[in-house]
Amino acid sequence: MSKTAAIVIIGDEILSGRIEDCNSLFFSKELRKLGVSVKHIAVISDDTEEIAETLRRSSGKYDYVFTSGGIGPTHDDITIEGVAKAFNVNVVKDPELEKIILERYKDGAAEAAMKMAEIPEGAELIKDGDLGFPLIVFRNVFIFPGIPEYLKNKFEAIKETFREKPFYSRTLCVNQHESNIAHILGDAEKLFESVKIGSYPSVGKGTMRIKIVIESKDGEIVDKAFDYIKNLLDPNTIEGCE
Amino acid sequence: MSKTAAIVIIGDEILSGRIEDCNSLFFSKELRKLGVSVKHIAVISDDTEEIAETLRRSSGKYDYVFTSGGIGPTHDDITIEGVAKAFNVNVVKDPELEKIILERYKDGAAEAAMKMAEIPEGAELIKDGDLGFPLIVFRNVFIFPGIPEYLKNKFEAIKETFREKPFYSRTLCVNQHESNIAHILGDAEKLFESVKIGSYPSVGKGTMRIKIVIESKDGEIVDKAFDYIKNLLDPNTIEGCE
Repeated sequence: MSKTAAIVIIGDEILSGRIEDCNSLFFSKELRKLGVSVKHIAVISDDTEEIAETLRRSSGKYDYVFTSGGIGPTHDDITIEGVAKAFNVNVVKDPELEKIILERYKDGAAEAAMKMAEIPEGAELIKDGDLGFPLIVFRNVFIFPGIPEYLKNKFEAIKETFREKPFYSRTLCVNQHESNIAHILGDAEKLFESVKIGSYPSVGKGTMRIKIVIESKDGEIVDKAFDYIKNLLDPNTIEGCE
Repeated sequence: MSKTAAIVIIGDEILSGRIEDCNSLFFSKELRKLGVSVKHIAVISDDTEEIAETLRRSSGKYDYVFTSGGIGPTHDDITIEGVAKAFNVNVVKDPELEKIILERYKDGAAEAAMKMAEIPEGAELIKDGDLGFPLIVFRNVFIFPGIPEYLKNKFEAIKETFREKPFYSRTLCVNQHESNIAHILGDAEKLFESVKIGSYPSVGKGTMRIKIVIESKDGEIVDKAFDYIKNLLDPNTIEGCE
């Protein structure tokens, strides 16, 4: 069994479609490469109660929770408050973060930026990466900035912590209607229990095309399931996958 | 108050990052143009219990729920089952859908495709659009296909049902660190209560850039909040927005 993760994207700008979320796709792809199974993605609004409720649920249900957004200095940056509320702890100022902010911001700006020194009481600071500003982690909740460049930088710095046995998958592409092969895939999933078989149709030039993905952490069973399915498919419908 | 909506994307292929979800962005943008406020987006796995739990919660909390994916003929297509479980009704075969499938699928294919005639007992069929296959609606849950071309086609056909008073928004872009203007935005949101003010930083060429979005259904208050904020910003930092 692989470790599981939830991704929680915080921000009204994503919900309104004004800004395109690229962070959840980044997390999904990276975590999969690390062998971690993403089980849930939520995009939620800048609302303390909503953040708290989502994090409480995800934190209990999955091994890791990755949040993105809502940690700047403005009125709509309330992720820290939401985390604290989720776990019923106080928001406190961290002396180390205060020091970093005082060094970085000049004039009156430091006072306004001081909101960014707040952490949920008991949080850890991870100082890897080269941003100068640590990543805040509370229990299994990793609190990332929403700006994609910063998020990627932070994640690259800590990702090896999450690495485990990789997924192994094989792919078959067929030029068919799904209903013609549904029974083959259904039988295969029953026969090879630990294997996950996905069927992803797309519309080609007037034809239907299905990508069949066979996946597990056990490579041997994947190969067996692959051969089983391939032998039952009409060879004239099998195509190369892009 | 505008109507609210949740978007529920069903599919392991999205969670694994294997297929990029473009349906939630499509829904978000379209619903916003129609004046509907999207409050929640969830991406969940092909798991009946997970689908049922998510839909039960969303259906009670928001005016509309839009699902995407999991309605084909294969073993991993279990959205209908999930909807039925959420509302504690049976899955039944709809005679009208059976007829459509018999007409459309030849030979043995019709039998396998017959899974697509299943609906949660009591669901409505909406026949707008030109796909030949109706949209299944159960209470406030609109069950869309996952294939983007089909989803768009269906949504276009019924979208006017959802139209209401549009949002009105104005935008200001400034070349600043957020902490320098946080107090202005915070004050403005307190002063103009019905207005939502968003602050979206991005990283430019070595500088920070903030897009300030002021939004409400009441245009007059948006204009007032816009003037208030603009007058307090350093005019040298204000730039045109792309």
